[in-house]
Amino acid sequence: MEPRGPDIGVDELQLAARNSGMPLEALDWPVTPLGLHYLLIHYDIPRVDASTWSLEIDGLVDRPLTLSLDDVRARPSETVAVTMECAGNGRARLEPRPVSQPWLVEAVGTAEWTGTPLRALLEEAGLRDDAVEIVFTGLDHGVEGGVEQDYARSLSIAAASRDEVILAYEVNGEPLPPQHGFPLRLVVPGWYGMTNVKWLARITAAAEPFSGYQQAEGYRMLRNADDAGEPVTRMAPRALMAPPGFPDFMTRRRFVARGPCPIRGRAWSGHAPITQVDVSADGGRSWHPAFLDDDDLGRYAWRGWSWTWEPDASGDYELWCRARDAAGNEQPEIADWNVKGYANNEVQSVPVTVR
Amino acid sequence: MEPRGPDIGVDELQLAARNSGMPLEALDWPVTPLGLHYLLIHYDIPRVDASTWSLEIDGLVDRPLTLSLDDVRARPSETVAVTMECAGNGRARLEPRPVSQPWLVEAVGTAEWTGTPLRALLEEAGLRDDAVEIVFTGLDHGVEGGVEQDYARSLSIAAASRDEVILAYEVNGEPLPPQHGFPLRLVVPGWYGMTNVKWLARITAAAEPFSGYQQAEGYRMLRNADDAGEPVTRMAPRALMAPPGFPDFMTRRRFVARGPCPIRGRAWSGHAPITQVDVSADGGRSWHPAFLDDDDLGRYAWRGWSWTWEPDASGDYELWCRARDAAGNEQPEIADWNVKGYANNEVQSVPVTVR
Repeated sequence: MEPRGPDIGVDELQLAARNSGMPLEALDWPVTPLGLHYLLIHYDIPRVDASTWSLEIDGLVDRPLTLSLDDVRARPSETVAVTMECAGNGRARLEPRPVSQPWLVEAVGTAEWTGTPLRALLEEAGLRDDAVEIVFTGLDHGVEGGVEQDYARSLSIAAASRDEVILAYEVNGEPLPPQHGFPLRLVVPGWYGMTNVKWLARITAAAEPFSGYQQAEGYRMLRNADDAGEPVTRMAPRALMAPPGFPDFMTRRRFVARGPCPIRGRAWSGHAPITQVDVSADGGRSWHPAFLDDDDLGRYAWRGWSWTWEPDASGDYELWCRARDAAGNEQPEIADWNVKGYANNEVQSVPVTVR
Repeated sequence: MEPRGPDIGVDELQLAARNSGMPLEALDWPVTPLGLHYLLIHYDIPRVDASTWSLEIDGLVDRPLTLSLDDVRARPSETVAVTMECAGNGRARLEPRPVSQPWLVEAVGTAEWTGTPLRALLEEAGLRDDAVEIVFTGLDHGVEGGVEQDYARSLSIAAASRDEVILAYEVNGEPLPPQHGFPLRLVVPGWYGMTNVKWLARITAAAEPFSGYQQAEGYRMLRNADDAGEPVTRMAPRALMAPPGFPDFMTRRRFVARGPCPIRGRAWSGHAPITQVDVSADGGRSWHPAFLDDDDLGRYAWRGWSWTWEPDASGDYELWCRARDAAGNEQPEIADWNVKGYANNEVQSVPVTVR
């Protein structure tokens, strides 16, 4: 269960140098401290002047809106705790490895986002019946797959109208920092990170399904180059453990003493509540159910779990964990490969030496 | 000037996934926003309870001290803006590439640290004349080079007694977040990052030079495996530019329009003030002096610079920049190789396409 495939190349290293994973020991915090949440930034972080920024709501609406940040903040606010994971998390464990940001398992974090519900704004603008999708456009600009673009993604009217979808201007009680989308971002609880458009500038009600790069080319599960594929949407279930004991700097192998060894972690799914987490200390030959915490972060945040390992002898072990959700989705030992390397939720493996 | 050497392996990828560089567009901010400052964390981030934490000051002192966080905060405070760079910044551009955290050029950031001067605390404890070094020990614990250890580093009495050396409990006006050393860290302006011990637990006045791993094995400039080497101390000069225009997601190549193209960046040196920054748009064949900003962040923070590039034709270019300090140190085009890959301050290179 070591990362497989060819060695990482220059393009991937450049991406790894600028994007940030969450160190796994940060699983100890139910809400990820600011600065430890994962970051995937396609182009550059825009530097936005909030005093001149505005949000446009246009397209198939009866009353187009132009809102300042104060206008947005003056509307009803809600706070929702959300576990957010990059759709590419696990990519570097696929074989052959799709070339892009080479995530292992660290592309995740949980934050408390505060903002105003999107549905009420769409109602205020008078969303027309002939709209089929809502397109969200950010201020981040670049080239991807040969296409120059502002980052943009769409949602169906139904998905955009869910109660828990908000336009967020605070994270963990602070104004958004630049890297999380200052001054305003979309937050769609339960969906992979690419959905949550940062540096939001425009919301457009459209008569046709959006054909922009990030919808029609990117973020699709393709089995081969000729496959039209299905869009990536909700997060597949995943459990991660905070690796026990202490690490070797270079290999990240863990060292623990003999005797009871508490294992703690968190698990999430964008499809349904987590119903079971299992742990294996023998590389998947036997599995043990973990205790699920009574968390109070709500439906869209990860759920804590724990299990006490009692290794009976010194030696090298491989700790695995896997999650199952109420919809029956369960992590595989090896995930199906796909062209762009999305949603690889194969079980985590942590090498541990008992001394 | 592409990164050289063999492809990145699994151990390095694991390190890259948990440590964080500063995206280069963050050079636009004189003080790096929290969450964008680089992070290099040898072992795990300790989770510290400030209510039970204390700082011990012991060893060759007349009056050993045990201080709570409130005790430290009650002492005189100073704020100092500090540019901090990992000693391993540039490692992945060396050939052959030393295997460790594979930094390109992003391992830097500038923060405003608030804390209490170290020298006054040493005086309060009654530092004895027979002490030759001060040893700083953190709560981070792991194995490195086969040695189990708490992370620890030392300074000479002279280096530890400089006015600007502080024990910091705030960064950018906020309590330290876990990843920056909560609740207290050492800050030694001008020195590479490893000096600034995080999660500080103990300060010990010692009669002998410290022989711990991070002092005697790590962080030494070794020309070969038999070299005793010199310790890594102050930051070598470096200029970085915020890459102009907008990027291609995968290659990070930049695209700009024809016409005047403002280039901005920042430069620093731990040895002496920056006196000159030069820019080249032809891969180092010709150099042009940049304008140096009148910054007000003080002696220990980077200095802004700017230059307007006027490409006379469409095509591919390579932008370089280099800094010189008042002590006569200047960035090389290719740095001398060393075993552990420290202090590679070769000139930055940014590929740009003019359209």
